[in-house]
Amino acid sequence: MALLVQKYGGTSVGTVERIQNVAQRVARAYHEGHHLVIVVSAMSGETNRLIGLAKAIQPHPDPRELDVIASTGEQVTIGLLAMALKQLGIKARSYTGGQVPILTDSAFTKARILNIDSRRIRADLSSGHVVIVAGFQGVDAEGNITTLGRGGSDTTGVALAAALHADECQIFTDVDGVYTTDPRIVPEARRLDTVTFEEMLEMASLGSKVLQIRSVEFAGKYKVKLRVLSSFEDKGNGTLITYEEQDTMEQAIISGIAFNRDEAKITVMGVPDRPGVAYHIIGPVADANIDVDVIVQNTGENGLTDFSFTVHRNEYQKALEVLNNSLGKAFTAREIKGDNKIAKVSVVGIGMRSHVGIASKMFKALADEGINIAMISTSEIKISVILEEKYLELAVRVLHSAFELEKPIAA
Amino acid sequence: MALLVQKYGGTSVGTVERIQNVAQRVARAYHEGHHLVIVVSAMSGETNRLIGLAKAIQPHPDPRELDVIASTGEQVTIGLLAMALKQLGIKARSYTGGQVPILTDSAFTKARILNIDSRRIRADLSSGHVVIVAGFQGVDAEGNITTLGRGGSDTTGVALAAALHADECQIFTDVDGVYTTDPRIVPEARRLDTVTFEEMLEMASLGSKVLQIRSVEFAGKYKVKLRVLSSFEDKGNGTLITYEEQDTMEQAIISGIAFNRDEAKITVMGVPDRPGVAYHIIGPVADANIDVDVIVQNTGENGLTDFSFTVHRNEYQKALEVLNNSLGKAFTAREIKGDNKIAKVSVVGIGMRSHVGIASKMFKALADEGINIAMISTSEIKISVILEEKYLELAVRVLHSAFELEKPIAA
Repeated sequence: MALLVQKYGGTSVGTVERIQNVAQRVARAYHEGHHLVIVVSAMSGETNRLIGLAKAIQPHPDPRELDVIASTGEQVTIGLLAMALKQLGIKARSYTGGQVPILTDSAFTKARILNIDSRRIRADLSSGHVVIVAGFQGVDAEGNITTLGRGGSDTTGVALAAALHADECQIFTDVDGVYTTDPRIVPEARRLDTVTFEEMLEMASLGSKVLQIRSVEFAGKYKVKLRVLSSFEDKGNGTLITYEEQDTMEQAIISGIAFNRDEAKITVMGVPDRPGVAYHIIGPVADANIDVDVIVQNTGENGLTDFSFTVHRNEYQKALEVLNNSLGKAFTAREIKGDNKIAKVSVVGIGMRSHVGIASKMFKALADEGINIAMISTSEIKISVILEEKYLELAVRVLHSAFELEKPIAA
Repeated sequence: MALLVQKYGGTSVGTVERIQNVAQRVARAYHEGHHLVIVVSAMSGETNRLIGLAKAIQPHPDPRELDVIASTGEQVTIGLLAMALKQLGIKARSYTGGQVPILTDSAFTKARILNIDSRRIRADLSSGHVVIVAGFQGVDAEGNITTLGRGGSDTTGVALAAALHADECQIFTDVDGVYTTDPRIVPEARRLDTVTFEEMLEMASLGSKVLQIRSVEFAGKYKVKLRVLSSFEDKGNGTLITYEEQDTMEQAIISGIAFNRDEAKITVMGVPDRPGVAYHIIGPVADANIDVDVIVQNTGENGLTDFSFTVHRNEYQKALEVLNNSLGKAFTAREIKGDNKIAKVSVVGIGMRSHVGIASKMFKALADEGINIAMISTSEIKISVILEEKYLELAVRVLHSAFELEKPIAA
């Protein structure tokens, strides 16, 4: 008997029939004797419908009120799933984020979880209930409804698993695991049985979209065993995300090719090459609550340097405005340039730490196809390049093949 | 400068455009200097959509979970109206029932308000905000979401007006006041400038449908000034519901003809004519949370009597089942008969207390048209008759004309 947290996304609960299918799946686990906490998203399309209503009234919706509206999507799903379980004769009880309560900060539309009070859930589990919790939402210290931002239901699942010391957090989605890259771009892409947290973190942040990045961070921080599974097929055990490094002999050097087309890059040209410049550029952007992804600064000459970073494409204009307002106070820049027709492609693998030549192999494969690299950023376990968006698919295919990811790992 | 509670029903907020119209109306009152608390229903059709989803999963939805789902309708409207006001440059903040909090008992789908904590609302009003509250919902002592049942948004409005000692509670609806009867049945029906609480109570409970009965009870109990207005037209001051009796010289004897076709009647024939019988019949029905409307028991003979009552047509089958299970325990009945093709028509007027002959005039008017009366029930200010449903419209017209309600009141 285990304590399992299962999370079902919007597609998995997109219709009454699919909610009934999820109930059947939960019922099987229940009858196997497991304690179950189920986290659900809004029915697919519902969040967009609600945001559409809001935007019809306010083109830039007030964040507090948007959360009041958007959080209703999950609230409907929890009630429906509880009913579907009761219809199968299983005791079930639903909770909104505020009812648990899942305490967050007050950053509406992108709140962060501060604390989870698990007493009500534990009491319900003890009395044989399946507990159903609305994903994506919480409540701040003043009782205001907050949401965690898109994809936040994964984070809710992992945070609950951590708070409850669950044996496993199972993320049910429309794919049956983590692949070496997107099979829609590379048909030979292979499902990974395991992937390390560090790799997954890089894969998620780079847009593999299987899991939301914050949920992976959370899972790593609290050592939550995370498994990605298909909610539509029963075959396979999905991909287990581990936080212990495997024996390197059995470990591929490269786990996968991640990519992201939601970014835009901004370059601040000709700024003074002295301490504090990076802070004076990025500080105001961060203060405006804009997430920055890649940051690159090269060695300068003549006392000047160029500073580049990427942001989400939706925040490109806002970031430019912030920069135009903030620069000139501490120092001046020669020019601010931007480009929102870019994409990021990354080679990810925990094994690359002990293998030289990964970067050169990557750059050669791209050069052979005449793909120009605009920015490069590296970490211990990934190498990312920013390139023109039109080359994205080609780059992914070329790299997947160059690193022979279609071949099974030798045991 | 007054403190006003305004309530807008589902039709008034049925589309984005209508929500914007409500915002305009609220803005005018705001710029006149009033403090405003706005109570809204779900957008029309939304509650039915949500209940439809629930019933697709569970034909008899679990009441707790149904409230979780149904309460989202109002939650969307409060966010949208707050945004519409902000779009007009007015500070606004929305609250769900649970956020206020509006404390209720735990009778899911038909909860009753126990207490309202008005501190957050008062603080917001003091800082110049328009406060928007979701109608129809509350929270019980354990933090479960509850709803007050259909039409409960009126009750929310009145209860808030009472808690805040508001100067007036304005109910905006799709009619511009209370009429002597339904103008769709009697085109000559006339709008009343004022109507007493007692009369309104009888009118509402008898199906005039302008206001939900519980809101009128509440208003009377807490002496809330209640006004019914049109949310679509600006003309007129609607109908003010007063709790002070007017000078009878200016008061019509009869205020209106109310009717209700949502009832069914049940007669328990041949029960012992002794103390406790009424309790043994009605007790189990009330315990099953079925509201009973008219109750009639006539003098018996041979130690036996007949006992009749009416319930909402939706609860007719359930009430019959309850009776069939409960009778025979304390005593036996000769027969239980039921009829769900009935209607109730009532003559209502606070003036009738001091005027004899109202009943005989009513019965004569009906008899002249050959309409048979199945049950009669009277109170100080109303006389109700139960008759076959097919005679409903005819009876209303005949009575409206017999009491000359189309004529303006002589001053």
